[in-house]
Amino acid sequence: LILVGERINGLFKDVAAAIQNKDPAPIQRLAVAQTEAGAAFLDVNTGPAVDDPAAVMPWLVKIIEEVVDTPLCIDSAKPEAIEAGLKTVTKAKAIINSTTAERDRLEKYLTLAKEYDAYLIALTMNRQGVPKDAADRLALAMEIVVVADEFNYAVADLFIDPLALPVNVGQEHGIEVLETLRQVKTLADPPPRTIIGLSNVSQGCPHRSLLNRTYLAMAMASGLDAAIADVNDHELVKTAVTGRVLLNQEIYSDAFLKAAGPARG
Amino acid sequence: LILVGERINGLFKDVAAAIQNKDPAPIQRLAVAQTEAGAAFLDVNTGPAVDDPAAVMPWLVKIIEEVVDTPLCIDSAKPEAIEAGLKTVTKAKAIINSTTAERDRLEKYLTLAKEYDAYLIALTMNRQGVPKDAADRLALAMEIVVVADEFNYAVADLFIDPLALPVNVGQEHGIEVLETLRQVKTLADPPPRTIIGLSNVSQGCPHRSLLNRTYLAMAMASGLDAAIADVNDHELVKTAVTGRVLLNQEIYSDAFLKAAGPARG
Repeated sequence: LILVGERINGLFKDVAAAIQNKDPAPIQRLAVAQTEAGAAFLDVNTGPAVDDPAAVMPWLVKIIEEVVDTPLCIDSAKPEAIEAGLKTVTKAKAIINSTTAERDRLEKYLTLAKEYDAYLIALTMNRQGVPKDAADRLALAMEIVVVADEFNYAVADLFIDPLALPVNVGQEHGIEVLETLRQVKTLADPPPRTIIGLSNVSQGCPHRSLLNRTYLAMAMASGLDAAIADVNDHELVKTAVTGRVLLNQEIYSDAFLKAAGPARG
Repeated sequence: LILVGERINGLFKDVAAAIQNKDPAPIQRLAVAQTEAGAAFLDVNTGPAVDDPAAVMPWLVKIIEEVVDTPLCIDSAKPEAIEAGLKTVTKAKAIINSTTAERDRLEKYLTLAKEYDAYLIALTMNRQGVPKDAADRLALAMEIVVVADEFNYAVADLFIDPLALPVNVGQEHGIEVLETLRQVKTLADPPPRTIIGLSNVSQGCPHRSLLNRTYLAMAMASGLDAAIADVNDHELVKTAVTGRVLLNQEIYSDAFLKAAGPARG
């Protein structure tokens, strides 16, 4: 399981304030803390309050790369901000977060992903919104895979995100997302990878950590490859490590929590 | 998910001592504690140290039924002990724990299950021992289903147990058991139910509760119906409740941990 640290996002007040004040320290602390907790990638999102994300993204990338070697997940709804971030990246292969299945958008992001040799997260949604069940999610995943193939983009570099919803508003989606995770692996050979925004599941709910880690174990059993998550939630990381051992992805030892390390792929 | 409390088993020293001393109190306390923690059934096993389990089983059933109404899971390798227990049961439909897939044994236990109107746990193993993978487990599950059908025994009253092994000695079996849980549901319509001996997974390992609850979430995502488990492990029961909510088997409310209750079916 690849854990992508979610914390460097302008949706969080401390990050929004640091961006506002052009103060690198709080963001650099988050980069280090998430890396130490085992993040394999760090998500980087300017947040919705920033007027010109394409101007802010390079600054974020630069100050993060000053303190860690962890590769980045460049996260924006604006392709200009994505491209500005990718241009600035100097470390290992980045992830683009994210395109939808809409053809024009998908083509734009695939072009960027090819040009900058990046992984690409693709959400199984289009103008009609979030699909109601696994079959509709899979149909969109198939469209994404077909277009990626037309673009000669490596399908194994795609991360399909079947859109996990908050359990308090979309309870019926949980099992559909698990089913989608399983079926996505049958769409191509080699198959696309899978990812979810794990914290979405518990948005607005009490017992967030319990909901998140329980769903993580369920998703891992369904073939999940990666999660954008709160890597500083120690119970969550313990679940990820334990899940890898139980799925025989990491060799068991009595010291497996220590031996497996927090979040290697 | 149906939780079967594992604690009334002569493998535990306190239970062995209580049986030895003919002292009902420690066993009755375990019956009450497990029921309060949410056990839907209580496993009852005399343990290996007892010379004549068929003599001890009725006493166990009687003293447990004096203090709780929780139905029982009569657990013995000796059919005489199973029958002696079933004869004594006065509460709701019991579970027989367990037969293997060996034809003579299976026929004997199916006869008992029909005669006493009991559920039956059937292990996917035979004289050759534990199967190496999901396909071999499924072949044995299919044999069990076919024989049950020949006996006009309701397949939905069968609990197929695909034999979860300790992760420190049989790490490669974990994922095969999950795959078996998924596939068993395709064997008949209505399908047999599924059960695992959850604590087996962590036998002899550190971090037992963490291993048990992580595997429980994985198994629930794979369609598990029941687990014989340590119901007094509060973290485990929280995982079971949360899993039911995430799988949309229990309606979400903000107080879901309280609202869902500890372990209803």
